[in-house]
Amino acid sequence: MEISKLGEFGLIDRLTSDIKPVNASTLLGAGDDCAILGYDGATRQLVTTDLLLEGIHFDLVYTPLRHLGYKAVMVNLSDVYAMNGTPRQITVSLGIDKRLQVEDIEELYAGMRLACERHKVDLVGGDTSSSVTGLTISITCIGDAPEKDVVRRSGAKPTDLICCSGNLGAAYLGLQLLEREKAIYFQQLKEGKISPDAPFQPDFAGREYLLERFLKPEARRDIIDALRKAGIVPTSMMDISDGLSSELLHICKASHVGCRLYEERIPLDYQTAAAAEELNLNVSTCALNGGEDYELLFTVPLALHETIEQLDDIKIIGHITDADDGPVMVARGGSEMTLKAQGWQHA
Amino acid sequence: MEISKLGEFGLIDRLTSDIKPVNASTLLGAGDDCAILGYDGATRQLVTTDLLLEGIHFDLVYTPLRHLGYKAVMVNLSDVYAMNGTPRQITVSLGIDKRLQVEDIEELYAGMRLACERHKVDLVGGDTSSSVTGLTISITCIGDAPEKDVVRRSGAKPTDLICCSGNLGAAYLGLQLLEREKAIYFQQLKEGKISPDAPFQPDFAGREYLLERFLKPEARRDIIDALRKAGIVPTSMMDISDGLSSELLHICKASHVGCRLYEERIPLDYQTAAAAEELNLNVSTCALNGGEDYELLFTVPLALHETIEQLDDIKIIGHITDADDGPVMVARGGSEMTLKAQGWQHA
Repeated sequence: MEISKLGEFGLIDRLTSDIKPVNASTLLGAGDDCAILGYDGATRQLVTTDLLLEGIHFDLVYTPLRHLGYKAVMVNLSDVYAMNGTPRQITVSLGIDKRLQVEDIEELYAGMRLACERHKVDLVGGDTSSSVTGLTISITCIGDAPEKDVVRRSGAKPTDLICCSGNLGAAYLGLQLLEREKAIYFQQLKEGKISPDAPFQPDFAGREYLLERFLKPEARRDIIDALRKAGIVPTSMMDISDGLSSELLHICKASHVGCRLYEERIPLDYQTAAAAEELNLNVSTCALNGGEDYELLFTVPLALHETIEQLDDIKIIGHITDADDGPVMVARGGSEMTLKAQGWQHA
Repeated sequence: MEISKLGEFGLIDRLTSDIKPVNASTLLGAGDDCAILGYDGATRQLVTTDLLLEGIHFDLVYTPLRHLGYKAVMVNLSDVYAMNGTPRQITVSLGIDKRLQVEDIEELYAGMRLACERHKVDLVGGDTSSSVTGLTISITCIGDAPEKDVVRRSGAKPTDLICCSGNLGAAYLGLQLLEREKAIYFQQLKEGKISPDAPFQPDFAGREYLLERFLKPEARRDIIDALRKAGIVPTSMMDISDGLSSELLHICKASHVGCRLYEERIPLDYQTAAAAEELNLNVSTCALNGGEDYELLFTVPLALHETIEQLDDIKIIGHITDADDGPVMVARGGSEMTLKAQGWQHA
């Protein structure tokens, strides 16, 4: 059977759904942003891992190695924040092919170390080897949280408010702009309009924010800190890496609830809207399905409405409903649609 | 600068030597088989990670996917045992290219899950994505040990006995046999002597042990259990993944000591000796530098001489000396050589 028939989530489900933990220290296995471990003490350990492969997750034509290192760490930290934890340690494994020099790997590491410094994380080991198959980066992050503070995907309750940090779709549009300029660059090379050793240096003036959101995302420690300061422990939380629709559906499935998401409340930056217009894309589709936002999606009890509204950079975008009501998006015109992971359809 | 100028250890050293941990829970960072973490409790967490890349670490021409999965887990468990710990959890990240079907990944997982079951380890998550660059496997293992039992590389003292489990060089010769048969197979294909769809099925009768040592190594939990039962906590320990010479030099460097290793005491299986003879290789070189043995190399105080001698499958192969004496190998004829990581030279 072709793997594409099952998709990533289907394949993982097929391979791991019948796994039963045998160790007392395994409190939660696969299926959330992090696994949850517990030893002798009230602290919980949170473990997450991400594999970044050249040609799939990044393109060295337009990705500076320093940014790549920064992002590779950041996407892992984001998973720990999404459990309401504090990232503490990372391990870094690299497969390095012959194109890359020591100075290139130093650039990559400089980005990783900057990310670690900013988020007070220790690089505690890893594995480095040569590669005949492109640059490979595998990072595992371990974080911690007091037992009572750990937030899973599965705790959302009907009437809970659905909240989202920052804004969505910007990284996706940053990627589209980079891909468009790359295509133009290679076309010009092919037609001999530019010299074969001309660097890839398109003019992205006015679009810097979108590029930065894609190339150098920032995990939202500030949001976690603000929630803690306000005394709020979300009932459920995830980071938005695969797109708002996909993540919200994960929360609905894990929590056995439905949702009502209001299209008009989805937070957008004006550069995102402008670039979507220019590229002839529906900006809501970009925000719902684009992914790589690394914002936090979480739910809080309805009673916290006013407290949440006073926090910076957090928007209430809908509320949780009974499972029977299903996952619903209310479009700008007021019509209702069933929320789907890839695009959506009229209900 | 070309990375080959520095080598793997030189590169890691350059990138990580000035890293200072900032978290209280980071007790030991890079530089041992595992990082050591400590939270609120007397249990220590041990973290190790390994990246396996197609074309570098494995060759699917002669590596059954089930064995590959088993080995990928085992090499990580071996690192936890090498700290005198008990492996508890693994995460598994896979990059899967289009050649592979769902059934192939199920085979790979079957091997990984068998390894987990035998060693009572939980698979708690990971990351799965498509790959355009061959099969990629990244595994992180977390184990634990009471604080007082954790064994580092750095505790060896002069007069300590150097001990080694099992026997060495077998996996290296298994690999040489597989590579030889693969070359013959492709030569025959090229010359049209066999059909293009003929499977790679060489006759390895009488060599099964060597192939198994390479394709399906077993991490030595039994040795750790036997040492615990005998009340022995080694003063230093490593697993032998890069070859006896390399590992012993790591212990000497980390412990600031020298060593005397006796060539005649290096444990060898008769199949290893026979295959080395057939392939015209020096069997001691294979044992010293071959690698992938996944045996345990450790040191114990001299006073434990008789206790160690009563344990099955452990041999005393030398003793620790003062740093000034350097790392020395005493050859079969009695001459002394400086021990080197790749081969050795007369002193």
